[in-house]
Amino acid sequence: MSSNSFGKLLTVTTFGESHGPAIGCVVDGCPPGLAIAPEDFRDDLDRRATGRSRHTSQRREADEIEILSGVYEGQTTGTPIALLIRNTDQRSKDYADIAERFRPGHADYSYWHKYGLRDPRGGGRSSARETTMRVAAGVIAKRWLAQKYGIAVRGWLAALGPLTPAAFDWAAIEDNPFFWPDAAMVQELESFMDRLRKSGDSIGARVNVLASNVPPGWGEPIYGKLDGELAAALMSINAVKGVEIGDGFAAVTQRGSEHRDEMTPQGFLSNHAGGILGGISSGQDVLASIVLKPTSSILIPGRSVNVRNEPVEVVTKGRHDPCVGIRATPIAEAMVALVLMDQALRHRAQCGDVGAVEPRIPAKP
Amino acid sequence: MSSNSFGKLLTVTTFGESHGPAIGCVVDGCPPGLAIAPEDFRDDLDRRATGRSRHTSQRREADEIEILSGVYEGQTTGTPIALLIRNTDQRSKDYADIAERFRPGHADYSYWHKYGLRDPRGGGRSSARETTMRVAAGVIAKRWLAQKYGIAVRGWLAALGPLTPAAFDWAAIEDNPFFWPDAAMVQELESFMDRLRKSGDSIGARVNVLASNVPPGWGEPIYGKLDGELAAALMSINAVKGVEIGDGFAAVTQRGSEHRDEMTPQGFLSNHAGGILGGISSGQDVLASIVLKPTSSILIPGRSVNVRNEPVEVVTKGRHDPCVGIRATPIAEAMVALVLMDQALRHRAQCGDVGAVEPRIPAKP
Amino acid sequence: MSSNSFGKLLTVTTFGESHGPAIGCVVDGCPPGLAIAPEDFRDDLDRRATGRSRHTSQRREADEIEILSGVYEGQTTGTPIALLIRNTDQRSKDYADIAERFRPGHADYSYWHKYGLRDPRGGGRSSARETTMRVAAGVIAKRWLAQKYGIAVRGWLAALGPLTPAAFDWAAIEDNPFFWPDAAMVQELESFMDRLRKSGDSIGARVNVLASNVPPGWGEPIYGKLDGELAAALMSINAVKGVEIGDGFAAVTQRGSEHRDEMTPQGFLSNHAGGILGGISSGQDVLASIVLKPTSSILIPGRSVNVRNEPVEVVTKGRHDPCVGIRATPIAEAMVALVLMDQALRHRAQCGDVGAVEPRIPAKP
Amino acid sequence: MSSNSFGKLLTVTTFGESHGPAIGCVVDGCPPGLAIAPEDFRDDLDRRATGRSRHTSQRREADEIEILSGVYEGQTTGTPIALLIRNTDQRSKDYADIAERFRPGHADYSYWHKYGLRDPRGGGRSSARETTMRVAAGVIAKRWLAQKYGIAVRGWLAALGPLTPAAFDWAAIEDNPFFWPDAAMVQELESFMDRLRKSGDSIGARVNVLASNVPPGWGEPIYGKLDGELAAALMSINAVKGVEIGDGFAAVTQRGSEHRDEMTPQGFLSNHAGGILGGISSGQDVLASIVLKPTSSILIPGRSVNVRNEPVEVVTKGRHDPCVGIRATPIAEAMVALVLMDQALRHRAQCGDVGAVEPRIPAKP
Repeated sequence: MSSNSFGKLLTVTTFGESHGPAIGCVVDGCPPGLAIAPEDFRDDLDRRATGRSRHTSQRREADEIEILSGVYEGQTTGTPIALLIRNTDQRSKDYADIAERFRPGHADYSYWHKYGLRDPRGGGRSSARETTMRVAAGVIAKRWLAQKYGIAVRGWLAALGPLTPAAFDWAAIEDNPFFWPDAAMVQELESFMDRLRKSGDSIGARVNVLASNVPPGWGEPIYGKLDGELAAALMSINAVKGVEIGDGFAAVTQRGSEHRDEMTPQGFLSNHAGGILGGISSGQDVLASIVLKPTSSILIPGRSVNVRNEPVEVVTKGRHDPCVGIRATPIAEAMVALVLMDQALRHRAQCGDVGAVEPRIPAKP
Repeated sequence: MSSNSFGKLLTVTTFGESHGPAIGCVVDGCPPGLAIAPEDFRDDLDRRATGRSRHTSQRREADEIEILSGVYEGQTTGTPIALLIRNTDQRSKDYADIAERFRPGHADYSYWHKYGLRDPRGGGRSSARETTMRVAAGVIAKRWLAQKYGIAVRGWLAALGPLTPAAFDWAAIEDNPFFWPDAAMVQELESFMDRLRKSGDSIGARVNVLASNVPPGWGEPIYGKLDGELAAALMSINAVKGVEIGDGFAAVTQRGSEHRDEMTPQGFLSNHAGGILGGISSGQDVLASIVLKPTSSILIPGRSVNVRNEPVEVVTKGRHDPCVGIRATPIAEAMVALVLMDQALRHRAQCGDVGAVEPRIPAKP
Repeated sequence: MSSNSFGKLLTVTTFGESHGPAIGCVVDGCPPGLAIAPEDFRDDLDRRATGRSRHTSQRREADEIEILSGVYEGQTTGTPIALLIRNTDQRSKDYADIAERFRPGHADYSYWHKYGLRDPRGGGRSSARETTMRVAAGVIAKRWLAQKYGIAVRGWLAALGPLTPAAFDWAAIEDNPFFWPDAAMVQELESFMDRLRKSGDSIGARVNVLASNVPPGWGEPIYGKLDGELAAALMSINAVKGVEIGDGFAAVTQRGSEHRDEMTPQGFLSNHAGGILGGISSGQDVLASIVLKPTSSILIPGRSVNVRNEPVEVVTKGRHDPCVGIRATPIAEAMVALVLMDQALRHRAQCGDVGAVEPRIPAKP
Repeated sequence: MSSNSFGKLLTVTTFGESHGPAIGCVVDGCPPGLAIAPEDFRDDLDRRATGRSRHTSQRREADEIEILSGVYEGQTTGTPIALLIRNTDQRSKDYADIAERFRPGHADYSYWHKYGLRDPRGGGRSSARETTMRVAAGVIAKRWLAQKYGIAVRGWLAALGPLTPAAFDWAAIEDNPFFWPDAAMVQELESFMDRLRKSGDSIGARVNVLASNVPPGWGEPIYGKLDGELAAALMSINAVKGVEIGDGFAAVTQRGSEHRDEMTPQGFLSNHAGGILGGISSGQDVLASIVLKPTSSILIPGRSVNVRNEPVEVVTKGRHDPCVGIRATPIAEAMVALVLMDQALRHRAQCGDVGAVEPRIPAKP
């Protein structure tokens, strides 16, 4: 199976380099009869796009998506859906001077040791440009989950460096360029980012994704667990260094009497588990959280080596995000949606309607 | 592909329930010519075994392993290696009273909603008994990695609830029942666990695994990244709620100038990345860290429902670990070793010896 | 994915060597709630067994099957079903003299060149002993297909060397040791086989399998087509050198006006296609046909080489079938049933009940 | 795994409909460093192209291929290679009258029952147009196999309806539009096809493919056998109804003393096995043979039904091949090459250089 493919029954294969002619993906396994059109991809591609505010990379890509196959008269047909986006704003000269030197903290060195050669333009295949197609594929999954199960998959920025939201309001999230759930803090974030950009440095972040209305029974033990697949999907996003489900690492110091989510006929009394028990959804909201490292593409000079193992100094100019975590929000949503849709199909295959065992306790008290 | 299988080229398929007649696994894809005998499994199975100290479950399994296939005259032949362990110490009556009620924080409720029926004896398939076979399969991977590349995969308990090691000594780890790297603290851990057991409660933990001597170039971008596969493998372990690579969630508040690992001809100057860049090993030590939630099998009564959605009270007697994280150490090592061996084979397939691009900087300064 | 695994959603992994301690398989993905017991395997294992008549190998294996997992209180639970059979009648000394020489027409030479070593006892992994587990797994698939869809998968010997049935009677097939559909010819077959055995030679055969009541819509274009998967499954049976669907190679000389199966509201007017169009079942009976080569294990001396490439003479004594095609009938049935069940689950995953588009023309006029 | 993907380590995913905007494929797993350029695809695409002679479909596609990714400065980089061809000569009106009626012998009826809807233009996804991308992907495999192992994969038309070659000359094959190895018969084939076209009917065919210089040891028992994978690959080609390896169905009436290929230090004495023993290459030439049914797209009216199950008469006008087998030759070559390259990588992963056990007998006496 392709290492550039993801998912067992809903399989997404992506291709393309940052500065190649195009990026694209093939989404295979989508049920027939789902209405989808090029404009349906607009919103999420815009949410991920660079150049939306001064706080993200200034590369401006139109990201016009073309549906090459799998859709007939506005509906999916069950055959593979190919999506294509032409790259239009490559400035490869920005990278010419680092073709032979390895940027610290980047994939340059490891790609070179793996393949013996590499496409240095804009990071080539290792660029976050690839995640555009994840978002595109995720749009299909989100639509299907919403229409068939009423599932909503929504993310937000849960930490920007040392800053964390003091309040939570779903409505606020889409009203600021940070996907921040606390409107009162947006000014503070703006200032933080302005100072950071001026310093030439970058900062880490945390992104949360919550999927609501997930029915109980999704997930395939033992090695296709819902949390296992979420972990793989989220860790595969560029710059992610950790994944948590529910309480995550906070559970290190918790007691069992505190962590276990008690149940009553009226519903669960808490959700420390993040909606997953034994690798299978419990009917509660599924919560995943990730950390995005601070990008290594910064203006502050760093020590490194070149292909001849000679010492060099590296300064990454180009157009980069001082906090890659911000734009990771729609990407993380897409990955969660793709995992959920894949698991939905897998569950239907093995268990049909058996999963709908009644009675079921409500997702929330 | 089987949801009870793991790995692309080194594929491990496990089977068996906690109180069924046996557990076992099939390891497929191992190169021919590796020397292996039943006694080679002894050490790691003992490290994972219950009943070694008063701090773990008192279920006593002999865990005598039988090699059913794939080995001829003491050497692997390239055909699938089947390993079998008979269950001998099942006390199913311990579980009879919870056949119709769901233990909070357990897989009972989610399995029942997935499959419409379940084997309630000892947790059935969702029991940590399954991890015995991971450890067994991991023995094969550890041997191959050690012999062919000199790789060592070693784990330790990095936190027991609120306690963390004040010192680190490889030699100490195997000298106490906690896999604790700080000999001076063992007495403190003993007391902590005794108090905990008496309280009828349980506690969370953190386990670290470090793989040294991993060559650069292992890992398959984009959806077969080394860190993505580690995340899936580790998150699939029972009770794991989070996975970190390198600095993990600490990177939320780090700056790029701090996080990026600078390079010199004499080696990397730090290892925040945990040995993985762009999903590919960098030649540094690979570090993964996981959190194990406090087990929900505790003596303190909890509210729950039964299959008719009636309120019930649940007390889990049986023989349980007050800290499942302790015995998770060899399990986590096994998963890391299996992922590494799989990636080694995948790298060899696509890149042959190309990966051995020279010069290479040393793993450590 | 394991090379010893078969199927995407119903995945069968087999293990074991001819003269090792045991053979077994793991069947993963079976829906929960299917009633199955060890005695349900008896009939088909007996049909495949050696030693039933003087016309097959005289190796006598009890083939007592043990269900190790996946079944609780007589029903499948949705977890992997492991099946085990101990080998009891190995006579490895029969093979001692050929450990260093390659039997012509056998896998000895190719295994040795692949792995650099091999288990020579009874052919090791390349022995048809492995097919016992296919038959066992096939029993599960046959039961599920029959109960859920009323599908019957039945095979027969369609040619024994130069002999072909002059008549066809379903009832006759199970009444003779040849799976021959023409009772009047059984005496002729007995004589033919007696002469053959006396000559020390072997003969080829053709086996047909027909699956009736298959609904339209099963099969996944383009690379998971029903006929493509049948071809892979059947070609993987030992000694098979060709696979046909429907008219097969007879279509070389057919015209389109003859081959195309015309349709009327009352049904198809013919079935040249063997029930598959564009890789998807059409609702007609699915017909597959295979050729089994004459076994190379014969008493007539043959020229060969040894591991040092020196010329040797080989005579295969042991206990062998003069016509391996005879016992292949239940094996071929099993493979067809496993492919169909896998495709049924795949269809259900992607298309749910959409496949049941009405009106549908009857399978037969 | 995607049902529109093929291969385990060299994975080809195709997409596109006959009359959609484009067809394409993603080839993942190709080793880095292979030189490849758009013009390298020209020859094989031309060999498969329609409109080359009056004996094939008159649809004229420029088939200009674009490399979208995976190649940098003329060399593969190890990342996925995406290939795209725009459809330019769709005449969808040709098919308007059959949108609601099912052509007998076509995938119309089965697609409709699978998906509940279909793209009727030119057969949509079930069109042989898809095979263009197989040929394109096959070019990469052929180049790699040739450069690394000196392997040549070559096909020819072995039967055109009742006609079979009376002589065999490699040089003749590429000198006539039939891929016919007997130059003296080409005039006879021309006449046969002219008469056939005039009659409005179509005819079946047989295509052979031979791969020479394949090393011993390729193929993964039990369910990834070289012959099993060839069978799946070849049966997945449109219109194929049967696959043979080596002597194929002729083995039904052969004796073991005749079929087994005896060996001497100077080489094998025959090649009835078609170069494969126990699913693993033996070092002899690999020979596969397929039957292509006569296309059902003919001018002779046929009985059928429409989507309301009413009786209709169908005449397929459009631009069709009276013998689809002719153009199948490069397609079959491509599939054999792709299977071999995939197996080469798989062998390298598990066995490294072990397969090169010496001494090895020559492929030919």
